[in-house]
Amino acid sequence: MKFVTATINNQPFIGLIQGEKVLDLQKAERKLFELATLPNSLVECLEMGERFVSHIKQLEEWLKKAEDTESYLYSLTEVTILAPIPNPRKNIFCVGKNYRDHAIEMGSAADVPEHLMIFSKAPTTVIAHNEEIDPHLHLTNGLDYEGELAVIIGKKGKRINEEEAMDHVFGYTILNDVTARDLQARHKQFLLGKSLDTSCPIGPYLVHKSAVEDPYQLTVQTTVNDEVRQKGYTKDMIFSIENIISTISQGTTLEPGDIIATGTPAGVGKGFKPPKYLQPGDVVEIEIDGLGVLRNRVKEQ
Amino acid sequence: MKFVTATINNQPFIGLIQGEKVLDLQKAERKLFELATLPNSLVECLEMGERFVSHIKQLEEWLKKAEDTESYLYSLTEVTILAPIPNPRKNIFCVGKNYRDHAIEMGSAADVPEHLMIFSKAPTTVIAHNEEIDPHLHLTNGLDYEGELAVIIGKKGKRINEEEAMDHVFGYTILNDVTARDLQARHKQFLLGKSLDTSCPIGPYLVHKSAVEDPYQLTVQTTVNDEVRQKGYTKDMIFSIENIISTISQGTTLEPGDIIATGTPAGVGKGFKPPKYLQPGDVVEIEIDGLGVLRNRVKEQ
Repeated sequence: MKFVTATINNQPFIGLIQGEKVLDLQKAERKLFELATLPNSLVECLEMGERFVSHIKQLEEWLKKAEDTESYLYSLTEVTILAPIPNPRKNIFCVGKNYRDHAIEMGSAADVPEHLMIFSKAPTTVIAHNEEIDPHLHLTNGLDYEGELAVIIGKKGKRINEEEAMDHVFGYTILNDVTARDLQARHKQFLLGKSLDTSCPIGPYLVHKSAVEDPYQLTVQTTVNDEVRQKGYTKDMIFSIENIISTISQGTTLEPGDIIATGTPAGVGKGFKPPKYLQPGDVVEIEIDGLGVLRNRVKEQ
Repeated sequence: MKFVTATINNQPFIGLIQGEKVLDLQKAERKLFELATLPNSLVECLEMGERFVSHIKQLEEWLKKAEDTESYLYSLTEVTILAPIPNPRKNIFCVGKNYRDHAIEMGSAADVPEHLMIFSKAPTTVIAHNEEIDPHLHLTNGLDYEGELAVIIGKKGKRINEEEAMDHVFGYTILNDVTARDLQARHKQFLLGKSLDTSCPIGPYLVHKSAVEDPYQLTVQTTVNDEVRQKGYTKDMIFSIENIISTISQGTTLEPGDIIATGTPAGVGKGFKPPKYLQPGDVVEIEIDGLGVLRNRVKEQ
């Protein structure tokens, strides 16, 4: 199951990918079930819990037998994809230095963390697949990409054990943790360098965990203008998804719709000598097996 | 003008303090104006812009002549005060080490920052005046208080100049940036040590800026069990409110309802030898001139 938040003719809807088509979930529900139980946003759907997924499975069954589907089954070319959660209700949780080779490229072996490091990005940073990244040329000379696997929380919890952590995961998406390296260094705490408007492309899909066989067998590949810069493997994470969820939630309640970016592998712009920072016109593409490709161009001013 | 978010008979309302009484703004509007223009939350009121304040001024004028006010003018003893913004739409922005003496007590003169340092607290941390702080004894042995002046943004903006920064301020409140010192140190980036549930008491009021003659002539005093621990003066901030707003907004859009905690003066528990961390049963009171007293007890388990 791959979910999207999207618009068609400027009307927002929540959808489910069906090959080259996308199912308008609210419209399909009304037509097929003569019901209107689904809320307007994916976050509210996640709050429905298990009921949401079983409802969607039923909808997919009915769809197989349906005729006259054109009013709620659109061609993907007709729609504009938004971020799966366009307006998160809190900052995005981000794990710092969760791949050994990346920690080293940012400094030295001393930078490999002993304990989980969490910082955040403001919700105003979020943009969609195919939206443009503002280079903020008045503010930074060191805009960098960070391709990451992001986890979307589906179930509220506190003091979650590692064993039960996966029950709290709804699914996965791709996230580009765009970072202004000069601001990150100047302001010590990372928030400002990580929170420039448009510095958090997310998407294109929110993929349900049932469609990801093993989240530790994924390749995260980032290209800039078709040049491969990052090629990392989620098996190399220092802190596992279960560990991240458990550690955060020991003191901080996690809620449906929370986004956790799990860290970036080696190959960021800062790691090259000289650094290869993003320039206006550059196209960044991040691909993760089964999650699609997140593509964003840096705006030319 | 002192605004509150509160409940009466478990029904939430937004109110305006009138001496020992509190005006239920939506009910008063319906009675006095036969209108229903005010939304249900203070954040949505702030989004109305200048119109909100002029509307409230008019309501206050009409109230002077009103009779039979008992259905919308409650005694303060009847109501339960909530946090002014109980569910912030993003993490709280917090300034680190904005008072020289506090920076030094946290380490040495080398800790006095050259550049603004911003970290955040998750919205799940927010509690009200008189609610209890969970000591999280399973997780921390170093729970500390930080009394702070907080600024509430009233007007959306990006790349705000210092000269126009005050136009974007709606008002002020008191905030206790409760911190787990051991987690803050262990995880390097501050988010986890700053984001324990209940670690952000805010209130009791949201005071409009027109009621604060000079935000740099305020005393911030924190007591623990009536012992004065912090007595600082906002004139001693290293980065001014205007500078903080301007610096954040150079890259990050600020929005109505955003909360910015401006940093704590010297006298936190960690600054004493040996440290004076919070214990179950302790009562923390923070007083700022004109903003009232924010009082919270640490829960006994």
